[in-house]
Amino acid sequence: MNQKRSTTRSRLLSLGLDTLSAEGLAGLTLGRLATDAQMSKSGLFAHFRSKEQLQLELLEEATKLADAQVVAPAMQAEEGLPRLRALFAKWLGWSARAGLRGGCPVAAAIFELDDAESGVVRDCVAELDAKWRSLLRSLATDAIKCRHLDRSVDPDQIVWELTGIYLAHHASSRFQRDPQARRRAEAAFGALLRRAGAKISR
Amino acid sequence: MNQKRSTTRSRLLSLGLDTLSAEGLAGLTLGRLATDAQMSKSGLFAHFRSKEQLQLELLEEATKLADAQVVAPAMQAEEGLPRLRALFAKWLGWSARAGLRGGCPVAAAIFELDDAESGVVRDCVAELDAKWRSLLRSLATDAIKCRHLDRSVDPDQIVWELTGIYLAHHASSRFQRDPQARRRAEAAFGALLRRAGAKISR
Repeated sequence: MNQKRSTTRSRLLSLGLDTLSAEGLAGLTLGRLATDAQMSKSGLFAHFRSKEQLQLELLEEATKLADAQVVAPAMQAEEGLPRLRALFAKWLGWSARAGLRGGCPVAAAIFELDDAESGVVRDCVAELDAKWRSLLRSLATDAIKCRHLDRSVDPDQIVWELTGIYLAHHASSRFQRDPQARRRAEAAFGALLRRAGAKISR
Repeated sequence: MNQKRSTTRSRLLSLGLDTLSAEGLAGLTLGRLATDAQMSKSGLFAHFRSKEQLQLELLEEATKLADAQVVAPAMQAEEGLPRLRALFAKWLGWSARAGLRGGCPVAAAIFELDDAESGVVRDCVAELDAKWRSLLRSLATDAIKCRHLDRSVDPDQIVWELTGIYLAHHASSRFQRDPQARRRAEAAFGALLRRAGAKISR
């Protein structure tokens, strides 16, 4: 790929991801992106053959951003509970810190595509969601192995409840624009860890 | 309103609500509803002057359905914790029991409109969401007054965490199609009540 083409492509992905985060998959069409990028629709076709291809590439781009913004720094923390705490702290509100105009594109897509029939975009979101839960699960399991959490804890229940806290934080910070959102999420997370036998205080 | 007009209108609201629940606000246009109802678009205009009017009426219709499906039966339970438990049990998965094809239209709208600028539809969803949280808050407060929950409990934190459990249940039952969704939600709810000092066991 020559440099100009690569620069244009990364500008398109950045513009598209911003729209995806603020308006969801339904807000994202090739026509809309062409207008935002001040390009012809045929010029855009040289980069993305279809709306689905664009959506898939943007979801992948969102994942790369979340990896850099959330996962990589959390992995610097000590193994076990410190790492789970670090991931949770970076996860809440990550899209704003990554410079996106809107919220987490994957969380929004889960609610947008929940009742959709199977298709490449739904499958891609399901895979990203499953990978994310698998990462959370491995950190919860490590915290149990390190004896930072009780052996009797069901890591899948922890993951399920963490997802609930994340979604409630998304709704309260972005929809309700509640300045208490983060404090509420931290209180819920602290209580979940105490219930799971966490001995290290914040 | 004459009878034929009233029958047509209620058929349109029912068709529209089904689409809203499965495809969200973005899936709902006057053209789409006219096609589904096998009516001309001008015929539809006699009932709804704009897409916004249709969306507002459907959100109101969803609320009536939730009132009948969730609130009215829960109010039959004894005041305090039994009523909060009854409401929670009816709330999870209510849209399917009400015969809708998709999930809770208000939960979906919160994620669809989170980053939208203010407007009549967003304002309406915000009002419905605030009313719902106010109902949850009053039931939590009653449970504290009845000494079913500890006096030290912050009812707003309870409401916040209940919302998280509801949203995680929505995502896991509708998006992930996880057969364990209800069991996980009940485990999270039980733990939240125990933390709040609930003495009555399930």
